[in-house]
Amino acid sequence: MLQNATSKSILNRLPIYLDYLINVINKEENVKYISSKMISNELELGEVQVRKDLAIVCGTGKPKIGYEVNILTEKIKEYLGCHYHKNAIIIGVGKLGSYLIEHEDFERYGIKILSGFDLVEKDDICNIPIKKFNIENLEKLINENKIDIGIICVPKEDAQTVCNILIKYNIHAIWNFAQVKLNVPKNIFVQNENLTYSLSVVSSIIKQQHN
Amino acid sequence: MLQNATSKSILNRLPIYLDYLINVINKEENVKYISSKMISNELELGEVQVRKDLAIVCGTGKPKIGYEVNILTEKIKEYLGCHYHKNAIIIGVGKLGSYLIEHEDFERYGIKILSGFDLVEKDDICNIPIKKFNIENLEKLINENKIDIGIICVPKEDAQTVCNILIKYNIHAIWNFAQVKLNVPKNIFVQNENLTYSLSVVSSIIKQQHN
Repeated sequence: MLQNATSKSILNRLPIYLDYLINVINKEENVKYISSKMISNELELGEVQVRKDLAIVCGTGKPKIGYEVNILTEKIKEYLGCHYHKNAIIIGVGKLGSYLIEHEDFERYGIKILSGFDLVEKDDICNIPIKKFNIENLEKLINENKIDIGIICVPKEDAQTVCNILIKYNIHAIWNFAQVKLNVPKNIFVQNENLTYSLSVVSSIIKQQHN
Repeated sequence: MLQNATSKSILNRLPIYLDYLINVINKEENVKYISSKMISNELELGEVQVRKDLAIVCGTGKPKIGYEVNILTEKIKEYLGCHYHKNAIIIGVGKLGSYLIEHEDFERYGIKILSGFDLVEKDDICNIPIKKFNIENLEKLINENKIDIGIICVPKEDAQTVCNILIKYNIHAIWNFAQVKLNVPKNIFVQNENLTYSLSVVSSIIKQQHN
């Protein structure tokens, strides 16, 4: 569903630029401009790559001066849809679900977690209510709010059932932390969080280190 | 540090094949052979791709019959280094660290978490001790065991300090869950778990859905 291949690879790097720029803004006073060379050195990315990426979101910088830090930051946020407010719910508030609810980076990307759902009602986490996962509670929330993202943190055996329910209630983007492939209609976007991929990389690397 | 580009892209898919094959073995009795066509249909991957991937780890299947399920499974595990036993420690046993300690997939990849370390001593999780993170406790464990992987689950402000300590104690593979870039010598492998990448993808997709 991404517009083109460029979009997909640039999405890998834009969060890195954004994080760096926000750090620059927070740490250093009166830094108005930043050059692609500075960014490239700091992030260990090729300068041509940096210039290409930033040209897509912000046009070219001023010769010998660079990009205005505030404007570049806002343009990246705009490109990433950070200014577009999105509501999310989390299904499954075990350790992983609780960790995500507390995660500070959601806000940066315009994502607000409205509620967690679990097998049992639980104490609020960071002022976010954790309700019992049943149709009545889900319907109530969905009737009162537009929900953009369903975050699935249940065990893999239950993930498809939960996914089907979310789709039935018109949630079109699923962020899946269960280590299982979900079957969804073509109009539904699924982002899989793939811990096993990293496990396989780490495992193979260590095998190679010892060969 | 991966041998070549092929290795990197195949590492993305081998865990998917492995998961599927283990499910087949667990669910269905007496399935001795499986064809690339079946795998391709089930996993929605191109058949040519499947055949190429499996040729790298297992050679070609038997014409019209396919691959022997048990042998293929073992060959994939071998390629991924699952049979090579690796010890890991987790630094930072908050919600994320506890979730990882309980995660069943580590064992499949031959990774044994020997201990968690946190600011304070905590109760065992799944029989894995959680010790106070200090040099004395770390040295004791490292003197008694070879540690292959250091898993960093501390807040980003502390990640570099923890990373430096792990490297000092000869841990050569770092799995970094802190959302920060770590500076390491060239001989150290770092696998970053990048939640912000997914955040940016999800955020942009929903922006596009509404444009």
